[in-house]
Amino acid sequence: MKRITEEDFKSFEKRKRANFINCLSGFKSINLIGTRDAKGSTNLCIISSAFHLGSDPALIGFIMRPDTVPRHTLDNIRKTGFCTFNHVGHSFYKEAHQTSARYPKEESEFSACQLTEESLDQFHAPFVKESELRLALKLVREVPISENGTYLMIMSVQDVYLNDEILKEDGSLELDQIATMCLSGLDTYHLPKKISRLSYAKADKPVQEID
Amino acid sequence: MKRITEEDFKSFEKRKRANFINCLSGFKSINLIGTRDAKGSTNLCIISSAFHLGSDPALIGFIMRPDTVPRHTLDNIRKTGFCTFNHVGHSFYKEAHQTSARYPKEESEFSACQLTEESLDQFHAPFVKESELRLALKLVREVPISENGTYLMIMSVQDVYLNDEILKEDGSLELDQIATMCLSGLDTYHLPKKISRLSYAKADKPVQEID
Repeated sequence: MKRITEEDFKSFEKRKRANFINCLSGFKSINLIGTRDAKGSTNLCIISSAFHLGSDPALIGFIMRPDTVPRHTLDNIRKTGFCTFNHVGHSFYKEAHQTSARYPKEESEFSACQLTEESLDQFHAPFVKESELRLALKLVREVPISENGTYLMIMSVQDVYLNDEILKEDGSLELDQIATMCLSGLDTYHLPKKISRLSYAKADKPVQEID
Repeated sequence: MKRITEEDFKSFEKRKRANFINCLSGFKSINLIGTRDAKGSTNLCIISSAFHLGSDPALIGFIMRPDTVPRHTLDNIRKTGFCTFNHVGHSFYKEAHQTSARYPKEESEFSACQLTEESLDQFHAPFVKESELRLALKLVREVPISENGTYLMIMSVQDVYLNDEILKEDGSLELDQIATMCLSGLDTYHLPKKISRLSYAKADKPVQEID
C-alpha cells in the first residue's frame, strides 16, 4: 500500500487535489436539483453530495457551495423553500452533466441542456421528465459549515414520483431497473450492478443472501 | 408515474418505511469505520452516510445515530478524536455487512466478523487489512442535527493508503479497479461499472467522453 500524507496531497496542483479528494469517500449519488425563482424562471443543477439523513422524519441532506454554479439554486431554495430531486439515469447522464456549466441566470439549464421541465400537482419547483425517480423536497433548515463556507441543506421529503414497477412489497426500490447512476470523483459516471441483498445482521448467525 | 405522498409513506409499517426512504437519495457509499477505545479495544462498523464535504481543506462528513449499534464507534471518536475509513470491496462485503450486528462492547467486530485489524504508522485507530483504500481521519467538529437526534461528524483527511495502481496522473482514483461497492437502501449491495468520464462542462460546447 502506498501512503499519501496530508502534506503530500496539499502540495498537489488544485485540480489534481480536487480529483483526488473527491474520490476518497467512495461512490456518490447523483441528482438533478430543480428550482424556480419568484419570477417563475427555472434552474437545474447536478449535485453529488446528497445523502440519507433519516427515515422518521424523512430527511435528505446535501451540501451547497455558494461560490460555484449552483448559487442560483441556493438562492431559489432560500427564497422559495422548495426544490426537486431527480435521479440521473443512463439515458440522459451527459445532459445532466452539462447542467454544471456556467449559464447566465436568465437561461434555464432545462432548455440549454435538452432536458424537459415538468410541473406536477402544483408543486412550486420543476421536475425533470426524463427522470424515473423524482422527489418533491421542502427546506427544513440550513446549517453553515464554517470550516469551508459551505451549507448543509436539510430537506424533508414531501412527495415521491416513481415508476411503480421498481417499488417492492417491503418498501425497497430496485434502482438498477431505472438505471440510476453513481459518480466517482468529479466526472466519472458508473452504472451499479446489483450483486445481492443481505439479511439483517445478527451476532449469532452468518448473513445470508435474501435476494 | 405513481405518486406517493408524505401521508402515504408515513403510514407505511416502520421497516417498510425505512427501506423506502433509504432508497430515495440514490446509491450510497459504503465504508467500514475503525476505532480504538482508551483501553486499546477496537471497534468496527459499516456506514453508508459518508459524503465528500470539501477538497481544501480535505473534509469528509458522515452521520451517526447514537441510538444504534455504532454508539461504541461514536464514543471512541469523541474520546480519542480519530477513526479510519476503509472502502468495502466485493471480496469481503458480507463480512462488512455482518459488522452491523449488535455485538457486546468487549467483543471486537474485527474478530467476530473475520476481518483483519492492521496498525499503520502509529495512527491511533485500526485499519482493515482487506480494504484496498483506507483513510486516517481526525475529528474536526460534530454538529447536532436536532431534527432527528443524529450528529454530523466533520472529519479531516490525514493520510490515504492505497494500491497505487489506481492513482492516475491527474489525481483521480479508479475505484472500479479495487471493486469498491455501493449500497441501495439498507442492505442491497451493488458493484459499479464505469461507463465514461466526461469533460469539464462549458456552456458553449457539448460534453465529451474523455476516458
